[in-house]
Amino acid sequence: MKIDLIISAEDIKKAKVYKKTAVVIDMLRATSVITTAIANGCEKVIPVLTIEEALKTRKEYDKKAILGGERKGLKIEGFDFSNSPIEYSKEVIGGKTLIMTTTNGTRAIRGSEGAKDIIIGSVLNAEAVANRIIELNNDVAIVNAGTYGEFSIDDFICSGYIISCVKNKMKVELTDAAKTAYYVYKKNEDIESFVKYAKHYERIMELGLEEDFKYCCRKSTLKVVPQFINGEIL
Amino acid sequence: MKIDLIISAEDIKKAKVYKKTAVVIDMLRATSVITTAIANGCEKVIPVLTIEEALKTRKEYDKKAILGGERKGLKIEGFDFSNSPIEYSKEVIGGKTLIMTTTNGTRAIRGSEGAKDIIIGSVLNAEAVANRIIELNNDVAIVNAGTYGEFSIDDFICSGYIISCVKNKMKVELTDAAKTAYYVYKKNEDIESFVKYAKHYERIMELGLEEDFKYCCRKSTLKVVPQFINGEIL
Repeated sequence: MKIDLIISAEDIKKAKVYKKTAVVIDMLRATSVITTAIANGCEKVIPVLTIEEALKTRKEYDKKAILGGERKGLKIEGFDFSNSPIEYSKEVIGGKTLIMTTTNGTRAIRGSEGAKDIIIGSVLNAEAVANRIIELNNDVAIVNAGTYGEFSIDDFICSGYIISCVKNKMKVELTDAAKTAYYVYKKNEDIESFVKYAKHYERIMELGLEEDFKYCCRKSTLKVVPQFINGEIL
Repeated sequence: MKIDLIISAEDIKKAKVYKKTAVVIDMLRATSVITTAIANGCEKVIPVLTIEEALKTRKEYDKKAILGGERKGLKIEGFDFSNSPIEYSKEVIGGKTLIMTTTNGTRAIRGSEGAKDIIIGSVLNAEAVANRIIELNNDVAIVNAGTYGEFSIDDFICSGYIISCVKNKMKVELTDAAKTAYYVYKKNEDIESFVKYAKHYERIMELGLEEDFKYCCRKSTLKVVPQFINGEIL
């Protein structure tokens, strides 16, 4: 099994995900939100690219759906929740559909279409993601959402952590990008200490989201592996 | 001053180099060859994309020019020299024009057109490149040639070394990609120990080019900073 890494949603090339297992990562915070929502009984998540598409989807598809997401890190006007994973408790999301639009994460998910399987990864469910990667037994492209089309330290080290979980269980071949992510993780296994170098971390702190940050760095506390199939994450 | 890093020739976007100082790096081995040739009195280097273009340029422009470069790491049929920097001694290259085509390096140079200045970096001239970056005083895009369009560990750590040389002399703002390269370099200041993880390193060893590898890892032994202007490197 070969594991590659794509550094941002803008750098996805179809040939690099084609027929592989794509693992989409936007640990701060979209894929942490999705993982948390599904773990808390959310029926499905529909990732959409625009606010207009989100509103239209709710109107036409499920009037009881929850609208979540962010623009510039903030809750969108008229939406029910922001991009904060701790908002998505069992009480509010259990049994519901979540329609979600974020700046980086949803783009990375939709950009990965063409992969054989698209699964959702975060620090929260890394161990479970690794097990699913091994089960699926195809080559892997870890797709970092990145931040505004740029390499982002948070997603990079999260990728390194997932790679480490796979490597603990089987022999894998890593591309240079994947090797470097793994190296950075092995030098910073607590994750938080290295994520603090991220430009994105500064933004999260500016917005007063330290609690979200701490939550998103909790390692393998959730067992679910959300999967994107035909426009929906189950 | 802001320093960004582009991970491969295939990932260059015009907006990311526009009006900046672009520092092109292909340490194994194109930019090490160019730096060595210029340090040894080569009059100019003309980087071209194809073998046909190389032959045509010699015919039409300078019949005494030296042809150098590689395909799959090997010397090209009918060319004078390969992509081995140690071949480009004062005796063979002094006063001559070098027409050069390589798989990754020349693509990265030509792909950086649109930058305000395009300079050629390697481990060999890192300190001198840093001084030139400071003199030029514009934002910087370090353009890694990469290997066959992929992130390459060798260019990444070489970038980290150049960033470190700049940081020793002035305060700079680094993007996440540049920060990570700097981090990796600071953990592996000898460079060789980390380059050994590179896929590209395996290829160099397969070809029996250990001497080239050792040479390309010599830190700041050359003072020249080749610059690409109007199709020529002087």
